[in-house]
Amino acid sequence: MSILVVGSVAFDAIETPFGKTDKIIGGAATYIAIVSSYFCKQVYLVSVAGGDFPASTIEDFKQRNINVDGLEIKENEKSLFWSGRYHQDMNTRDTLITELNVLAHFEPKILPVHQQADFVMLGNLSPDVQRSVLQKLQKRPKLIVMDTMNFWMEVARSSLLETLKLTDVLVINDEEARQLSSVKNLKQAAQVILKLGPKVLVIKKGEHGAMLFTKTGQFFNTPALLLDRVVDPTGAGDCFAAGFISYLSQQMYISFESMKHAVLYGNVMASFCVEEFGPNGIMHLTQDKIQERYNNLVKSIKID
Amino acid sequence: MSILVVGSVAFDAIETPFGKTDKIIGGAATYIAIVSSYFCKQVYLVSVAGGDFPASTIEDFKQRNINVDGLEIKENEKSLFWSGRYHQDMNTRDTLITELNVLAHFEPKILPVHQQADFVMLGNLSPDVQRSVLQKLQKRPKLIVMDTMNFWMEVARSSLLETLKLTDVLVINDEEARQLSSVKNLKQAAQVILKLGPKVLVIKKGEHGAMLFTKTGQFFNTPALLLDRVVDPTGAGDCFAAGFISYLSQQMYISFESMKHAVLYGNVMASFCVEEFGPNGIMHLTQDKIQERYNNLVKSIKID
Repeated sequence: MSILVVGSVAFDAIETPFGKTDKIIGGAATYIAIVSSYFCKQVYLVSVAGGDFPASTIEDFKQRNINVDGLEIKENEKSLFWSGRYHQDMNTRDTLITELNVLAHFEPKILPVHQQADFVMLGNLSPDVQRSVLQKLQKRPKLIVMDTMNFWMEVARSSLLETLKLTDVLVINDEEARQLSSVKNLKQAAQVILKLGPKVLVIKKGEHGAMLFTKTGQFFNTPALLLDRVVDPTGAGDCFAAGFISYLSQQMYISFESMKHAVLYGNVMASFCVEEFGPNGIMHLTQDKIQERYNNLVKSIKID
Repeated sequence: MSILVVGSVAFDAIETPFGKTDKIIGGAATYIAIVSSYFCKQVYLVSVAGGDFPASTIEDFKQRNINVDGLEIKENEKSLFWSGRYHQDMNTRDTLITELNVLAHFEPKILPVHQQADFVMLGNLSPDVQRSVLQKLQKRPKLIVMDTMNFWMEVARSSLLETLKLTDVLVINDEEARQLSSVKNLKQAAQVILKLGPKVLVIKKGEHGAMLFTKTGQFFNTPALLLDRVVDPTGAGDCFAAGFISYLSQQMYISFESMKHAVLYGNVMASFCVEEFGPNGIMHLTQDKIQERYNNLVKSIKID
């Protein structure tokens, strides 16, 4: 099965209590495409970058078998740039700089080759742009997973609600779930959100794990991996979503049980991400490393 | 098997974002003894109260088959009084008043009947007092579980370390684990604490569940129950510890596997507690209610 990944590629400058980076490669679609490439042989990246985006990164995508035909390069413009500083507990951060640049007028190019994608991952973007992708697809994909963020709930709520209606799985964090539902209690928030359209809701809780809810009342709750070292949460949510959708893309059937395992793979991929700055933690993984960590997670939560 | 419960009985006045109480019955040993009485037919309460402690509460203990021979009443003194206010997120609180009263010079009375106790639960108390109980026991109990708090780490650290050496299982929350170990990362904190004496460490994370570590490197991690209603965390930690030890007191063997289930029962009993103010949530439980909630928790975390 193939995955269509739509989202940003960017430069990030990150500061956490454990250090800081200069401009490094970032963007939701970067994290999602790289993680997905460990699971899926056909990953299609749809994004936009400026002339400043490194050719070496694009080459790296290709080496990973990520199809970059949908990565538009606007030579005379600059790539998205984001800079942020995480607080001491690393659960909250301040955005220092957001320069949208090419992303300000991003119109995803859906090429004929993208029409065959069975799985669509809508990374965090304007809900208008997310929806435009779905409208360009000639057949309904097997699974549409979307991410979003508080910002869009504030400035584009009605558009977000429209996009949500077209989505199978919404993957957001606990604070986003509270804001989207206007309900503080997460159990109740989930019920409100599931009435907005998605059949499945995943609420990520960072170091505290994740919860999976379905419209039919099924529920799965898991802690995260307990790590020795956490230095930078940037991209962890993207890696989670990518682990989730790309595991499912390799399964014969999408069942509640397979979605539980997808949540665990989401946890696993996010855990690699937070151990290093930016995407460094996900650049050099192997099937063995992924499987070993997955087995450790399963062992730590399993009861007889 | 029988359980010896040592700890405070008290009056509490509690304020949370969901309401406030006048002086109501509280104290670690109150919560522990009540919860334990649902699992174990022989619960021995060792505590001290003033003449103001209600006869009706003592009668209620007796109705629950809790042996109160070790509950000393000092008629001319007053019971421990604690008053606190929880912050908006209910994970932190300010202590407004602590009047130790009779607890200031508590010397637990270990009676001949207590010598037969196989399981000992040392509720949060001065580590000197906790240790004095162990020293009065003629035979080594099958399992000693202890709780403590940040206060004792600050004012009585060396005594706390002495008591820890005599303990099988330490049950504390995440912030206490960080303070006891002087290590922020919980995985590393656990390794430091297990070198201090206890064979087993349980780190409670409130709404985020609990983790079980053993000296031999075994590890279990579980989320908490997802609740519709949380109004008051007071006593939840005591109920957790009580669910843990009293479940184990009914098992033929104490294994890592049985301790996992004990952690789940700890979660279950804490979940009842937080749904009402003070001990109201644990006063009227039934075996069916406990089992139903346990089954729900297991269902929500189980993977095939």
